[in-house]
Amino acid sequence: MTELALPAAPRVSDRVRDLLGRMTLEEKLAQIVGFWEKSEGEAVAPLQGEFEAPRGLDDSIQDGLGHLTRVYGTRPVDTAERAAWLWDKQRWFVNQTRLGIPALVHEECLTGLSAWGAATFPTPLAWGASFDTDLVARMGELIGESMRTLGVHQGLAPVLDVIRDPRWGRVDECISEDPYLVGTVGTSYVRGLQSTGIHATLKHFVGYSASQSGRNFAPVHVGRRELADVLLVPFEMAVVDGGVRSVMHSYAEIDGVPVAADPELLTGVLRERWGFDGTVVADYFGVAFLQLLHHVAGDLGEAARQALVAGVDIELPTGDAYLEPLAEAVRAGTVDEALVDRAVLRALAQKEELGLLDATFEDEPPTEVDLDSPAHREVAALLAERSLVLLSNDGTLPLAPDADVAVIGPNADREAALFGCYSFLNHVLAHHPDADVRLDTPTVLEALRREHSDGTVTVTPGCGVDDDDRSGFDAAVAAARAADVAVLVVGDHAALFGRGTVGEGCDRDDLELPGVQRELVEAVLATGTPVVLVLLTGRPYAIDWALARCAAAVQAFFPGEEGGNAIAGVLTGRVNPSGRLPVSLPRSAGAQPYTYLHPALGGDGDVTNLSTVPTLPFGHGLSYTSFSRTDLRVAPGASTGGGLTVSVRVANTGDRAGADVVQVYVKDVVASVTRPVAQLVGYHRVELDPGQEVDVELVVPAARLAFTDRSGARVVEPGELEVWVGPSCAQRDVEASVELTGETYAVTLDDPRWTTVTVR
Amino acid sequence: MTELALPAAPRVSDRVRDLLGRMTLEEKLAQIVGFWEKSEGEAVAPLQGEFEAPRGLDDSIQDGLGHLTRVYGTRPVDTAERAAWLWDKQRWFVNQTRLGIPALVHEECLTGLSAWGAATFPTPLAWGASFDTDLVARMGELIGESMRTLGVHQGLAPVLDVIRDPRWGRVDECISEDPYLVGTVGTSYVRGLQSTGIHATLKHFVGYSASQSGRNFAPVHVGRRELADVLLVPFEMAVVDGGVRSVMHSYAEIDGVPVAADPELLTGVLRERWGFDGTVVADYFGVAFLQLLHHVAGDLGEAARQALVAGVDIELPTGDAYLEPLAEAVRAGTVDEALVDRAVLRALAQKEELGLLDATFEDEPPTEVDLDSPAHREVAALLAERSLVLLSNDGTLPLAPDADVAVIGPNADREAALFGCYSFLNHVLAHHPDADVRLDTPTVLEALRREHSDGTVTVTPGCGVDDDDRSGFDAAVAAARAADVAVLVVGDHAALFGRGTVGEGCDRDDLELPGVQRELVEAVLATGTPVVLVLLTGRPYAIDWALARCAAAVQAFFPGEEGGNAIAGVLTGRVNPSGRLPVSLPRSAGAQPYTYLHPALGGDGDVTNLSTVPTLPFGHGLSYTSFSRTDLRVAPGASTGGGLTVSVRVANTGDRAGADVVQVYVKDVVASVTRPVAQLVGYHRVELDPGQEVDVELVVPAARLAFTDRSGARVVEPGELEVWVGPSCAQRDVEASVELTGETYAVTLDDPRWTTVTVR
Repeated sequence: MTELALPAAPRVSDRVRDLLGRMTLEEKLAQIVGFWEKSEGEAVAPLQGEFEAPRGLDDSIQDGLGHLTRVYGTRPVDTAERAAWLWDKQRWFVNQTRLGIPALVHEECLTGLSAWGAATFPTPLAWGASFDTDLVARMGELIGESMRTLGVHQGLAPVLDVIRDPRWGRVDECISEDPYLVGTVGTSYVRGLQSTGIHATLKHFVGYSASQSGRNFAPVHVGRRELADVLLVPFEMAVVDGGVRSVMHSYAEIDGVPVAADPELLTGVLRERWGFDGTVVADYFGVAFLQLLHHVAGDLGEAARQALVAGVDIELPTGDAYLEPLAEAVRAGTVDEALVDRAVLRALAQKEELGLLDATFEDEPPTEVDLDSPAHREVAALLAERSLVLLSNDGTLPLAPDADVAVIGPNADREAALFGCYSFLNHVLAHHPDADVRLDTPTVLEALRREHSDGTVTVTPGCGVDDDDRSGFDAAVAAARAADVAVLVVGDHAALFGRGTVGEGCDRDDLELPGVQRELVEAVLATGTPVVLVLLTGRPYAIDWALARCAAAVQAFFPGEEGGNAIAGVLTGRVNPSGRLPVSLPRSAGAQPYTYLHPALGGDGDVTNLSTVPTLPFGHGLSYTSFSRTDLRVAPGASTGGGLTVSVRVANTGDRAGADVVQVYVKDVVASVTRPVAQLVGYHRVELDPGQEVDVELVVPAARLAFTDRSGARVVEPGELEVWVGPSCAQRDVEASVELTGETYAVTLDDPRWTTVTVR
Repeated sequence: MTELALPAAPRVSDRVRDLLGRMTLEEKLAQIVGFWEKSEGEAVAPLQGEFEAPRGLDDSIQDGLGHLTRVYGTRPVDTAERAAWLWDKQRWFVNQTRLGIPALVHEECLTGLSAWGAATFPTPLAWGASFDTDLVARMGELIGESMRTLGVHQGLAPVLDVIRDPRWGRVDECISEDPYLVGTVGTSYVRGLQSTGIHATLKHFVGYSASQSGRNFAPVHVGRRELADVLLVPFEMAVVDGGVRSVMHSYAEIDGVPVAADPELLTGVLRERWGFDGTVVADYFGVAFLQLLHHVAGDLGEAARQALVAGVDIELPTGDAYLEPLAEAVRAGTVDEALVDRAVLRALAQKEELGLLDATFEDEPPTEVDLDSPAHREVAALLAERSLVLLSNDGTLPLAPDADVAVIGPNADREAALFGCYSFLNHVLAHHPDADVRLDTPTVLEALRREHSDGTVTVTPGCGVDDDDRSGFDAAVAAARAADVAVLVVGDHAALFGRGTVGEGCDRDDLELPGVQRELVEAVLATGTPVVLVLLTGRPYAIDWALARCAAAVQAFFPGEEGGNAIAGVLTGRVNPSGRLPVSLPRSAGAQPYTYLHPALGGDGDVTNLSTVPTLPFGHGLSYTSFSRTDLRVAPGASTGGGLTVSVRVANTGDRAGADVVQVYVKDVVASVTRPVAQLVGYHRVELDPGQEVDVELVVPAARLAFTDRSGARVVEPGELEVWVGPSCAQRDVEASVELTGETYAVTLDDPRWTTVTVR
């Protein structure tokens, strides 16, 4: 086994180094583990039954503590009450432990801080669909502010896994199938969150999303080039450009090596190549899984050794491996204590950076907190509105103001349908299925009733999300018959551990709408009443049959607490849809894995009888107005080391204001390794009044055009590039060819990674 | 781009070296290309329209010729007539070209020589199902003898691609999802064929079967460990143990690098590591595809350069890149003529080895040839019988001698249903769809009528293989109602280029029985008459629904010209089935890719809601008798460098003679990289009379237990192994645990790769 030599000590202060020098082994180990005060029966992770219930907190912390795990997020309790508990505990650490170091408090925060009463923003797929990095950064900032208020220091978000297979349940937590979109949107989240002093955590470094047949934890089959050119890209951006302070290893095993035990990735790529100097935290129980799931360690002490060697600094959520088993291994001489020291230095350096080494907690905990202020609501609403993708429309949308509308479907009047699996609501329900946590979020039905006040709105669910009960079909059909338009709100229920139709551990081996929802839609379609399909989902589904027959279709990726209003806004026309698909709409589960980033390999029918064309392409999305894209000018930009300057004129050619997402794609015509048929290299969301036109100039840096050549170097090669702009990856409204000349250009970390945009 | 230095000249004779020294560039290039005298309109490969029709042979051969491509296999013409043509051409080469070197003649021969009137044996999946290497070797020998008779020198078989995804159409040409089974059966074919002086050709080196979503030519996502431990294994066995003389590159691109342009695989692995010194031939048009499909070359001269550098010696089927484009590149100085010389030396050395440098063709061509003698028929019958897998049986099989049997289904009376896509029949039909090539092979119906002479047999097709015509359902239902038993013969039609339900270019994105066959089976099941399902397919299908409801089911992987008789034999009880599944029966297309060789990653439901259990496991197959497996003894065998000696007692506990396939599996409990839950390390087919019992001792060499560690070395590590024997990979009739002690053992090429078996 390759074990990297211990790297030079991290850049830490004398104070931290001195602190380490005064610690016992037990005090050191306490700093690199978490403690999770779980309630009885809480399900928190796969295979949880394998782990002993941790001791009570009071018994655990004589030696101090690294992390307090999830103080707020898994229980429906008053935040002020929890804050008081937390301040009390922190004072205890400061005053009653020998070294007086408080715990670092981490919490989930993917779609908002996971705490009672906190805003729940749209899910990452919705961020991707918005193509709006500024708004995502603003959301991150608001989330960070809420975390600061409650004494939380580190958030376990964002998820930067590049979608490779929509069958995977955790697609719900991901941004896009395009690595650049993931990287830019994800880095914006990091910047926003960290601007408040909170540390973000990149999940899940790396490979998790490429699991075999889209199944959670299944082996990942990728080579080094795919890893470098697709899966690592957003992580590099968030580390190098975003300055993220923490990274979580993934549960994945790549080509037989679990990432949690892989020094080449966790130390070689992350620290030595990218210069990351924050902490690497374990995904929950990930260290123990080296023994329990991957079987590369015979016991927890050996699992701890491998994780430490690889570069996992802090074991979460609790110290199953890094406490007693690691202590024993150090005492037995099978683990070098210098490995422990390396992790402790990083953990203490993080606490110093967070100000925790000087914190006294003498201030009073917050008693009145507003985690869902008008500012939160505004950002949640804007992001939801900009994320809705109008897939198809024969003119039925916007609804006529006086239309009689039958609202049908299991997601029409269900607030949980607005939220992803890592929302507070669905997370609490995973841990406490019977909890009463209704949030008073307006559902699609409620919002439409309010907004469509000149017409009538009737409602019937028709069926559940994922059962086979067709007893509501008759009422649904009757309602549709009596209406001018039927709005069918269908889709997913996000949950954890196999309890939902999407979410962690909720994978699919087909991509049909869950349960009998397709049958419901078809029964309503048979009435002849025009059907507007609204999909509230956490993954793209195979709905070509519906697109062919519905009057209009709107894709909403769990749009959060303002999602009901946003959808009502699009249906009534108050909101002009501007979202674009961040993932291809699949043909079927049997056509997976698929993303738009594949090499050419002939046209349809040349080498296989099966079509390689998805139901709808990456980047697709309609508007209530229309746009033209003309006057494409492309010039190689010498100053960017093989990059490009691309300029295009975009005009609103319709009769109402709207936003287009300018999408610039390239194709490398001939390269030393195979390259995709299309690759997004720049984008910009631009709002235009009717008749307005602008020139959008994008400076595409070399890093965006680069790929890993056969020697392993990241290069831009001379030769022809096709460049185009269109309404999706699959359509070229304007195109050009440009010749990159000169020598092969080796891209370095100093090269910019972002396409810069100017609108004139 | 990494280009290996030119290796030392191959081991060739002074005669060959002298010959090279006297050649012009044009004469050299002529020796490293094929010529294919195609008829108008023959479809021979994907994208064929891209290629200019080759000149007539007489115009092409002034400079000599490397290969004559497919003289017999794509046209329904008399073999003696073609032989006369061939002898004439060869004499022309000997007498009319300057250097007098005849052409090497290659032909397809996967399931028998592709020539009119030649025996068609069962397909590779059937060889795998037989677990009978001796019989496969005997088949190879018979195929070789036929080839010698007709003046063919090289056969383009066997296919050693390890099945990774049953959606792929070319699964039809593959042996198994287990690399050891592929390696042993494939090497046996090579040994048999080459024992006659014919050169075998390994297809397709390497990776082709692991294409994304099982689609032909799609990118291959694998890392180096999977490549080494799974995909390369059978090739290594056939090269090192089988001494194969030729290897065909695969069309695949692995992690962005087309194999045809990859020196690391074609030269580094194949020649430098394994010591291969034969010829590497292009898959048809594969050199040109570097330009046309993979886009790693801008023109054919550059494609030729990359292929030559990588180690593709001979371009097939014609010299699209290696003639004019390569000549120009050499003249222009962009390709070093030494690269051409290297390939020519190998090509000439092969001709010398085949005796072609001394051949005069003064003998008379064969006029009366019997390519389907009783010896052929006997081997075809035995192999077919041993390949049939009894999937389930409630006692309905064998059929009662006096039963009234309704034979239903599109494959019941269709001789093409017995053959794979690379059979002569289906290959000819691909090239000449309207040819009259009925072969008088007994179909299932004809054989059953003859064999079930005490009962009655009625027939109706019910539907076609792959259309939506249900007009025959009523007759089928009526026939079933009137019968004691319904035998439903369903499955595939093998063809090329998207024209079939399986075969080259005939991929599937679902794994339901094609067309309306499932509906036909369900309509017949609804009658209540017991249904015996007979599957004549080229891939495993998702038939759990049928297994649950049919009285019995028999899986036949295209069993060849004696397949109808063999199936009738199993149905009537003349033959006691002994085939075992060489592939898992899948749950669905959406559950792919899947093979039994996956790591544990928790039990069902631990980490994903989806089951990881296939419908039926690898190795499964029932008999009309029963077997016990007891007295497992396992000892580490020091002399095998970390190997094992495994002994097990197998007894026939039923009342009729039958054959069991002893299957020995291991699981490495803890390893430095993740290892599969089960891995076949030895097997043996053993025939037992009622009450008979034998001890089967298997010496499992280190190479069988080895894997690629993190440093890239192939090792056996100390530690616990679980060892078991059972009726499939999923059931442990007897199990044991053994501790391998000592240091990690590095396996070398000198270690044996085969498990040796002794029966006492």
